[in-house]
Amino acid sequence: MIRTLIPALLLASAAGSAQAAPIEGDGVAWDIVEGLTTEIGPRLAGSEAEARARDWAKAKLEALNFANVAIEPFRTEAWTRGEEEARLLAPYPQPLAITALGRSVPTPAGGLKGELVYFPTLAALRAAAEGSLAGKIAFVDHAMQPTQDGSGYGIYGDVRRAGPAIASRKGAAGVVIRSVGTDFHRNPHTGATSFSDGAKPIPSGAVSNPDADLIARIARRGQPMRIAMTLTGRPNPDAPSGNVIADLPGRDPSLPMILLACHLDSWDLGTGAIDDASGCAIITAAALQASKDGRLLRTVRLLWAGNEEMGSQTSGGNAYANAHAGDRHALAMESDFGADRVWALRLKLADANKALGDRIKAAVWPMGIVPQSGPAHGGADISDTVKAQKLALVDLGQDGTQYFDLHHTPDDTLDKVDPAALQQNVDAWAAVLKVVANEPGTIAPIEGATEE
Amino acid sequence: MIRTLIPALLLASAAGSAQAAPIEGDGVAWDIVEGLTTEIGPRLAGSEAEARARDWAKAKLEALNFANVAIEPFRTEAWTRGEEEARLLAPYPQPLAITALGRSVPTPAGGLKGELVYFPTLAALRAAAEGSLAGKIAFVDHAMQPTQDGSGYGIYGDVRRAGPAIASRKGAAGVVIRSVGTDFHRNPHTGATSFSDGAKPIPSGAVSNPDADLIARIARRGQPMRIAMTLTGRPNPDAPSGNVIADLPGRDPSLPMILLACHLDSWDLGTGAIDDASGCAIITAAALQASKDGRLLRTVRLLWAGNEEMGSQTSGGNAYANAHAGDRHALAMESDFGADRVWALRLKLADANKALGDRIKAAVWPMGIVPQSGPAHGGADISDTVKAQKLALVDLGQDGTQYFDLHHTPDDTLDKVDPAALQQNVDAWAAVLKVVANEPGTIAPIEGATEE
Repeated sequence: MIRTLIPALLLASAAGSAQAAPIEGDGVAWDIVEGLTTEIGPRLAGSEAEARARDWAKAKLEALNFANVAIEPFRTEAWTRGEEEARLLAPYPQPLAITALGRSVPTPAGGLKGELVYFPTLAALRAAAEGSLAGKIAFVDHAMQPTQDGSGYGIYGDVRRAGPAIASRKGAAGVVIRSVGTDFHRNPHTGATSFSDGAKPIPSGAVSNPDADLIARIARRGQPMRIAMTLTGRPNPDAPSGNVIADLPGRDPSLPMILLACHLDSWDLGTGAIDDASGCAIITAAALQASKDGRLLRTVRLLWAGNEEMGSQTSGGNAYANAHAGDRHALAMESDFGADRVWALRLKLADANKALGDRIKAAVWPMGIVPQSGPAHGGADISDTVKAQKLALVDLGQDGTQYFDLHHTPDDTLDKVDPAALQQNVDAWAAVLKVVANEPGTIAPIEGATEE
Repeated sequence: MIRTLIPALLLASAAGSAQAAPIEGDGVAWDIVEGLTTEIGPRLAGSEAEARARDWAKAKLEALNFANVAIEPFRTEAWTRGEEEARLLAPYPQPLAITALGRSVPTPAGGLKGELVYFPTLAALRAAAEGSLAGKIAFVDHAMQPTQDGSGYGIYGDVRRAGPAIASRKGAAGVVIRSVGTDFHRNPHTGATSFSDGAKPIPSGAVSNPDADLIARIARRGQPMRIAMTLTGRPNPDAPSGNVIADLPGRDPSLPMILLACHLDSWDLGTGAIDDASGCAIITAAALQASKDGRLLRTVRLLWAGNEEMGSQTSGGNAYANAHAGDRHALAMESDFGADRVWALRLKLADANKALGDRIKAAVWPMGIVPQSGPAHGGADISDTVKAQKLALVDLGQDGTQYFDLHHTPDDTLDKVDPAALQQNVDAWAAVLKVVANEPGTIAPIEGATEE
């Protein structure tokens, strides 16, 4: 695999900016990403760091003069990382860069050793005979490719979401996957898996792409592979989490609110700069920017959700939907795809709101944001509320070409955030907010499935 | 710091190649890099893996029909990595990605905790008052920038080579530097430091560039910083190493040889693909390619040196110079700067060999390789022999713009090697060899300093 296709001068220019005087942004959005990554850093759902992040968020939102700032605690299904180490024992002893997946269970004392069985795809693993992996460790390869709209995360992400449970049902004692990621660094990508279908939880890890390349090369040599791995991360099924909410009260409190959401928790390997401090920064700065020249007509509610990453029925989005079932919302938007530029617009509006949709399109066309076919999807932090209240949706789609280079890795750090792109997000969100939060007419409920 | 300056499509194209069917090369050079990184991997000087690499090298060189293939053992100053972990304790608790430097000594049992004192440059550390760091841990920042010819490694590398001893003489209990590297990943760069001037060895580590950015941002906030670090790596002062040598006998054994060198050891974090499996691959494939159409006039000697990385007086280059002081060499060349394309030519020839120099230039101009001002430098594996025997030198300078993104990191893996660029190196070396190894006249000795 060639890594030198990137012209040297471009790399030089990017790398060159690395250690010179840091390029820092300014304004509310930058301050939030910079502050949260510098003063808190990793904030795993259910952890003490996530609690510190809630306090930080509350203080920040109060300092920005939001109203009704509150921490709303809830209990959640969490997961705690432990020691993680793996190495090939045969045919060639080599260390492997590995990280555990959320919901992985610990390896036995002294670690897990066994034959490593290579599957080139998730489909190949599915096709393995029942019981054929008894006492063995499955390795599942695949081939994630970047897409501008991030759509590859659906099909490529299945290896992480579904692979471990499938391997477990075939009898595997453990599972290792190629990271769900598009980079070429020794930083494996974590993320949650699921055994919710009743499969016995097994130790589950992901190796970096270069390590997966190595395993694939060795597999092609045809000799049996053996691995030793120690993953001591374990489920933490009843942990404290919490949402932070804040309002920008509208001129007419009788009108249903506009709900803007992001998530405050992050995976613990990086500092959660793009996932999702940037989202919280964008929605917060945009609410302020949209109301700079005068109060908006409708109240704008910010939800900085706890525990999005474990994606369970005990998420912040779920807790919010339950706690605020009595609050009237009209339309929801979520920012949880990094900090690169917005380029795509998707709407989900009732037919009666076609004129509103046209005004949203007109507000963002000049910014290079192009309407896409198909309805808006929303995201995990708003989905339960959207479903319960049949909310209209606006998706401002960010460029995700590089997102899965960084997603859920140690590399999710502040230096990956371009202040100019971050501000373009704020500008786009503010432009949409000025339209939807000033809509005097009915924003009608709309039925239909939303994706989480 | 902006990481999004690289056009998305280019990144997509580079990253896109990552997990598709691997782009593999072919031929002798690729087989050596692929084999050494796949079947051996990391091969720290003095380690059991370095010994396995010697056996692998001997078998490979014999299979390629080289003559006089031999492992030549020597004892060496080595260093063994241990546990490595660091975290900021105050003002904000955050984990740090750290790696120990070669010659670091272990932290006390339970780790080292103390105030972290920020120095923006090595010069600032030098200016600190004697004793002012007593019981503290120095952090030394700096700003490495990429250069095409790698010349930045001199001045930027001083923070690693000299920083720890300077901090020690100011009383520091430990030292942390910003990695000597041009990348922006959470993979710190290791490498040797030195306490040979008599400074008391102290625990010495490097954090990744994003971690150094974090420390710099926190330092700007002006609150005292505290760090906890555990580095258990320790000197291994009398370890087994060895060189592997092989000859391609010339038609006239009475003529002094051409010496081609690389190093077989690697730092242990990566698999030593660019540093320096590629160098061994290039010199070996080039010798075969140059003699494909008929034996060369002079014998070509390959030196795959042991322990280059600790750069001491017990290196493979030193052992070779001592063991082969009686062998007659005429000219030496070394490949130890990765696998990117050769673009620069430097010569060090006696005035009497001007015509030979012109023929070398003419052989590589058509390949885009440009003569540079100033003499050839050689490298660490040949320097002792060059000095002792006053050898002529040819440097084929590789593009190093991306080299210090990978150098001494976990990211030094096979996927970073472009098979086409690797082959361009082989072609360039073969073209030069056809000239110098077929030179019937005297290649005259030449005096003057060489750099290591």
